Amino acid sequence: MGSDLGPSEVIAGIKRALSEDKSADYNIVVVGSEPVISPLLLRNGLLRDSRVKVYNASQVISMDEKPVQAMKTKRDSSMMRAIEIVKLGTADAVLSCGNTGALMAGGTVKLRPMDGVERPALGTVIPGKSRNFVMIDVGASPDPRPETLVDNAILGANYAHVALGISNPRVGLLSNGTEDGKGNTIVKNAHRLFKEQRGVINYGGLLEGFNLFDGDFDVVVCDGFTGNVVLKSLESCAHMLKDILKEEICKSWVRKLGIFLAKGAFKDIKKRLPIDKFSGAPFLGLNGLVVKAHGSSNSKQIAGALHITLRCLRKKMNDRIREDVNRLKLVRQQNKACASGEKDSVEVWLSDSK
Amino acid sequence: MGSDLGPSEVIAGIKRALSEDKSADYNIVVVGSEPVISPLLLRNGLLRDSRVKVYNASQVISMDEKPVQAMKTKRDSSMMRAIEIVKLGTADAVLSCGNTGALMAGGTVKLRPMDGVERPALGTVIPGKSRNFVMIDVGASPDPRPETLVDNAILGANYAHVALGISNPRVGLLSNGTEDGKGNTIVKNAHRLFKEQRGVINYGGLLEGFNLFDGDFDVVVCDGFTGNVVLKSLESCAHMLKDILKEEICKSWVRKLGIFLAKGAFKDIKKRLPIDKFSGAPFLGLNGLVVKAHGSSNSKQIAGALHITLRCLRKKMNDRIREDVNRLKLVRQQNKACASGEKDSVEVWLSDSK
Repeated sequence: MGSDLGPSEVIAGIKRALSEDKSADYNIVVVGSEPVISPLLLRNGLLRDSRVKVYNASQVISMDEKPVQAMKTKRDSSMMRAIEIVKLGTADAVLSCGNTGALMAGGTVKLRPMDGVERPALGTVIPGKSRNFVMIDVGASPDPRPETLVDNAILGANYAHVALGISNPRVGLLSNGTEDGKGNTIVKNAHRLFKEQRGVINYGGLLEGFNLFDGDFDVVVCDGFTGNVVLKSLESCAHMLKDILKEEICKSWVRKLGIFLAKGAFKDIKKRLPIDKFSGAPFLGLNGLVVKAHGSSNSKQIAGALHITLRCLRKKMNDRIREDVNRLKLVRQQNKACASGEKDSVEVWLSDSK
Repeated sequence: MGSDLGPSEVIAGIKRALSEDKSADYNIVVVGSEPVISPLLLRNGLLRDSRVKVYNASQVISMDEKPVQAMKTKRDSSMMRAIEIVKLGTADAVLSCGNTGALMAGGTVKLRPMDGVERPALGTVIPGKSRNFVMIDVGASPDPRPETLVDNAILGANYAHVALGISNPRVGLLSNGTEDGKGNTIVKNAHRLFKEQRGVINYGGLLEGFNLFDGDFDVVVCDGFTGNVVLKSLESCAHMLKDILKEEICKSWVRKLGIFLAKGAFKDIKKRLPIDKFSGAPFLGLNGLVVKAHGSSNSKQIAGALHITLRCLRKKMNDRIREDVNRLKLVRQQNKACASGEKDSVEVWLSDSK
């Protein structure tokens, strides 16, 4: 248990989350080395908090370990133990800052994808100019099938409903242009499938990188390779701009004074781009909830990820996903039947799906 | 002939380029409607400049026209005429702000890819924190073969040599992680092929989005879909941040005063990220040079694209590319021979390649 900043940051994050959300409908089970965790809980005044429990685990999966191997050999790692207590029903969700691949492998193997979902997808909230949006998948499946992108739209739409409070999220498919015919093979095929899903998803068509932050779409669907590269590139670009600005400001006291006077603008920009608030990214589509927080999460971000996790549970996100997945399953059966000319049985199915 | 801002911006760009580069080793042929161009040349004092010529073309390909159709039906468009005069040897390069697809289609069909190059690739310079780098492909081939990514590395490395003055550019392959085994199928296969190219390319391995601006690589290779999405997303993110900053600054006079005092920092940031200087992106790998400038280019960006074009011609980029492509061809023959056990003939080829 721990982020790159160590377990103390995680415990501080828990303390922050508990003080920000005082409701009594949840407990937090801290999984990891008890001799390390208990003194930290004591220091943060949480040792006697009835909402916090400790579950001992003796091993740690490091960031550079091979996921499947780590999962197999480190059965008593905090990550695998945490997934297990979700499987056993002792907990409802796992939150981890650890090795993304191991978390995905452990979650997929131990909790299994929901019926009708092939693989989980990693969804994350990205702040936009006027509104935030969910990007899915940002790393779980680098080589998905076109059908998987349609499944992921359901996962992303339900996450947008829960995380952003949008009732009928508008879904866009990320491409290299907005005209029909644009895209690589997978996008072209997925675009065709999206048109055949009869309103299970509120599909708004293709979007390109230029429109990403325009606010036209609440959910942006892409393959896990593109999503991962885009997300990390944006993060790295933002860091570069911040670093360059800092360097340039430090070059003279006039500039420093200027930025001091304008600091309110920068504070308000931070508020408008609430990255810390949405610092948890769930692996959607699993039987159970697995949430990934950034490896370098600070206490504020850990608290943000905990709030996201609680929101997903309280709004019964997984039940909603299951309903939509079943609706899509029916539509697919209908389409298949239509294609093979079984028109009579299609009518029956259509009335079934209401 | 014209950008989204109209032909006057293009002529102003030519004027700026001519005043910035006074050497007499080049002429500019302005292709488009003469009745429109001549008054603009007169207004800019270029009508009697011996370096500027006009070539009449009666049609215009609009931004939303289908590339292949436009190429076929608008034979007297400024874009197709400009490509034709390169084919005829009257000019050495085309620079256009027009429809990217039509420019690529026209360039590929009329000028043909070089021997050994399957398709052209679009390379562009992106400013990094400490140094700039070339990203290739940013849109020409959304579904390339792994071999194409290796070819593109040669194109990108030669462009980096010309545009950035780097003698032995270090090439990285963009992926969703830096460890061996990361990537989608095409990246995994390309990574393997890169290891087999025996030093024709200075290959440094995989990089991920987080490292994009670190300056570790001079050339970043990716498929045209990912490259296009990443480039446009970054541009759109930068625009969003700029807009939000402007909005927040305008909210109070104290903030405005502060930014006025710190304006030197923002000017220096602009200098450090010289986007206007590298506003032209060549379709590399064609017999002839085809350079694309942004549709919304202003005169400064047109001038920047003209300078890039001149640099590519003066440094004989295409001759260098042909040499490297031939070297890679030999290596591939050697590898093929090795694989089929023809060891004797391999020795002969190896000495040939020196």
